[in-house]
Amino acid sequence: MRAYDVILRKRNGFELSEEEINFFINGIMDNSIPDYQASALLMAIYFKGLSKKETAQLTMAMVNSGEVLDLSSINGVKVDKHSTGGVGDKISLIVIPLVASAGIPVAKISGRGLGHTGGTIDKLESISGFRTDLSTETFFNNVNKYKMAIAGQTDNITPADKKLYSLRDVTATVDSIPLIASSIMSKKIASGADSIVLDVKVGSGAFMKNMTEAIELAETMVDIGRALNKKTIAIVSDMNQPLGHEVGNANEVKEAIDVLKGNGAEDETYVALTIASYMTILGGAFNTFEKAYSYLEEVIKSGEAVEYFRRLVSIQGGDPNIIDNPDLLPQAKNHIEIKSEEEGYVYSINAENIGVAAMLLGAGRRKKNDPIDHAAGITLIKKVGQKVAKGETICILHTNMSKWDEAYKVAKSSFEIGEAKKTSSPYIHKIIQ
Amino acid sequence: MRAYDVILRKRNGFELSEEEINFFINGIMDNSIPDYQASALLMAIYFKGLSKKETAQLTMAMVNSGEVLDLSSINGVKVDKHSTGGVGDKISLIVIPLVASAGIPVAKISGRGLGHTGGTIDKLESISGFRTDLSTETFFNNVNKYKMAIAGQTDNITPADKKLYSLRDVTATVDSIPLIASSIMSKKIASGADSIVLDVKVGSGAFMKNMTEAIELAETMVDIGRALNKKTIAIVSDMNQPLGHEVGNANEVKEAIDVLKGNGAEDETYVALTIASYMTILGGAFNTFEKAYSYLEEVIKSGEAVEYFRRLVSIQGGDPNIIDNPDLLPQAKNHIEIKSEEEGYVYSINAENIGVAAMLLGAGRRKKNDPIDHAAGITLIKKVGQKVAKGETICILHTNMSKWDEAYKVAKSSFEIGEAKKTSSPYIHKIIQ
Repeated sequence: MRAYDVILRKRNGFELSEEEINFFINGIMDNSIPDYQASALLMAIYFKGLSKKETAQLTMAMVNSGEVLDLSSINGVKVDKHSTGGVGDKISLIVIPLVASAGIPVAKISGRGLGHTGGTIDKLESISGFRTDLSTETFFNNVNKYKMAIAGQTDNITPADKKLYSLRDVTATVDSIPLIASSIMSKKIASGADSIVLDVKVGSGAFMKNMTEAIELAETMVDIGRALNKKTIAIVSDMNQPLGHEVGNANEVKEAIDVLKGNGAEDETYVALTIASYMTILGGAFNTFEKAYSYLEEVIKSGEAVEYFRRLVSIQGGDPNIIDNPDLLPQAKNHIEIKSEEEGYVYSINAENIGVAAMLLGAGRRKKNDPIDHAAGITLIKKVGQKVAKGETICILHTNMSKWDEAYKVAKSSFEIGEAKKTSSPYIHKIIQ
Repeated sequence: MRAYDVILRKRNGFELSEEEINFFINGIMDNSIPDYQASALLMAIYFKGLSKKETAQLTMAMVNSGEVLDLSSINGVKVDKHSTGGVGDKISLIVIPLVASAGIPVAKISGRGLGHTGGTIDKLESISGFRTDLSTETFFNNVNKYKMAIAGQTDNITPADKKLYSLRDVTATVDSIPLIASSIMSKKIASGADSIVLDVKVGSGAFMKNMTEAIELAETMVDIGRALNKKTIAIVSDMNQPLGHEVGNANEVKEAIDVLKGNGAEDETYVALTIASYMTILGGAFNTFEKAYSYLEEVIKSGEAVEYFRRLVSIQGGDPNIIDNPDLLPQAKNHIEIKSEEEGYVYSINAENIGVAAMLLGAGRRKKNDPIDHAAGITLIKKVGQKVAKGETICILHTNMSKWDEAYKVAKSSFEIGEAKKTSSPYIHKIIQ
């Protein structure tokens, strides 16, 4: 077999065989196929796509390129979730205790963030003492005993995906639906999940800006799950404005706690409970969405949900006092209020720009090993559709930096204030299963 | 400027600016742009094409990447020709003396062949003593004095094209019309031509198998010439069977001499005289095709044409006796006749396979520095449309090898003998100017 022929066949629109896909992935891993042939194939895939079969086979080839977590010593169906990434997306923090409270084991493997704010691991590390470098034994024991544990991704997961991604990143071949889908699904499958709930974000703050593409991505991932015997449900959720009111790290933990206490923002609560509901359904705890959803509402109401979170924090070494006293979370030195210059209604909040502003305040990282300021972030006082008076605060910047001009400018211009009231988008656009 | 953005813009179907094209070619030359980005761009070009403007600009960027021959010290309009390559294509050998005889200077820079048979330079080296490593001074002097000279291509011509071609060759991006067109035209322009006649071959023995693509390639090259102020005429000529009767090196020189003596095959003579006519027109010697063509016919009839060829051989150090006694050219030890097993008419001769058979006999090279056996080759006794009796010789293999089974099989199966007489294709399908 020759790499040339594989490129040629894909370029001419033919379906690659499993042997050809494995040959290519193995060749990339043992360097027998040079990068210039890999990038030519990636561009051909960008233009010609991959069939369902090819996409699933590529996913498995990437899974098999590295370590695959064996969660079989954990009892029950292991359900994972994944978000394609949005601004203010703290849903993982909320669903871990919720799903565990329904008796479904949550063995969560998460990444650090590269972008506007930290990832789930970074956010949890806002909590003093919280550790995510659990030994495999502790991780498994905690899941079996407490139904939940969270740890950072190891470097040995899907190395072929890492290699392909780094090439895609410099050859304008990132935004190919089958390549995105197989990349995400390979990481979830290598992390040992039996079932997966995917949160595909769509809108100004998401990677997928338009609905057609978001739905296509969601369907492609559900198809991969089906082909590989991993029950998969995808929700397409709105990211035209940030989720909830908090964008950052420590402040997002605080907001997650609010949701678990029943005081959360409506959008945040609804999306989190929907995802948690599907996770409990896939885990076998409920057979209808309505039953799952009302159980979770009840768990919040009764205070059990927040107790699960308190337990998660404790068993991972964090300070559980932050639950009752969120002010113990890192606080920034400077809080800068941005006020509206007009009267009217919030017409839109550009989520991506709010993310950029948060990053400028220190909440995110540009490069892999950049430090993160857990205290930095933005609080949105007003959201889309809300009335605003002239001089009223629309958002607050939190930072330890001494300069915030640029962030101020970006955050302020993210708000569009109009005369007419605009109804905000639905929180969830579509469920694909 | 970033290579990434250039790839992205081309991938999205935008026209690249001259700055972007130059940035890319310069980056490839100084290695600031890695091969994996170059191959991604090439694949994007394969799918999205290049506009006329981009194609011309890419051509000039490749011309400027290396040495450009300055032929200004040669008097008159310097006309070059180029063939996209066919089997039995010995036209350059014929047109050099013909065009020179009309007073038009021919400063021919030719390559060695990589393929079925040698290139023009290899063919001429069949002639004992013939040298093509002329000094620049001798080359220019000969053109000024005798109106003709031929030399091998230097290594310093269009290095960017060489680099791109070697990448295209391993990434399935060779068969892109604008990339083929700019590659050919860059070499011609760097060789100093003022005007160019292009012979685009189409058919089973040509790189372009179908008419639509051949015409598109011809038009693209004529457009490049127009954009860069180089008068260019392209003919699309037939390559569904080999041209003339001889395929090889020494035997092709012999057939070229036959044409110059007026004893050539009809197809070979017609195509050669057509190309030579357009060259003399571009050179300013004639203003109509008819005048040019009948002048050249007259030059052949009068014996002047072959005298020009004798002079070319002499001034480049070759043995002029081969003109009157072609048996002085290298002769193979073995001549194997292939006979027809059926009675009927030659329905087709697969030119590509005849080329493969010639290569198997030793007439061509697979790798750059392979030796060539000038005596090896094939003589086609029968051509398309001719009647053939059972047991009659259809072709003769010439080789110094002791085994020829494979070549015999391939050559024999190249002939299709049918019951009905088939009229052969027209020699020239289209003239584009």
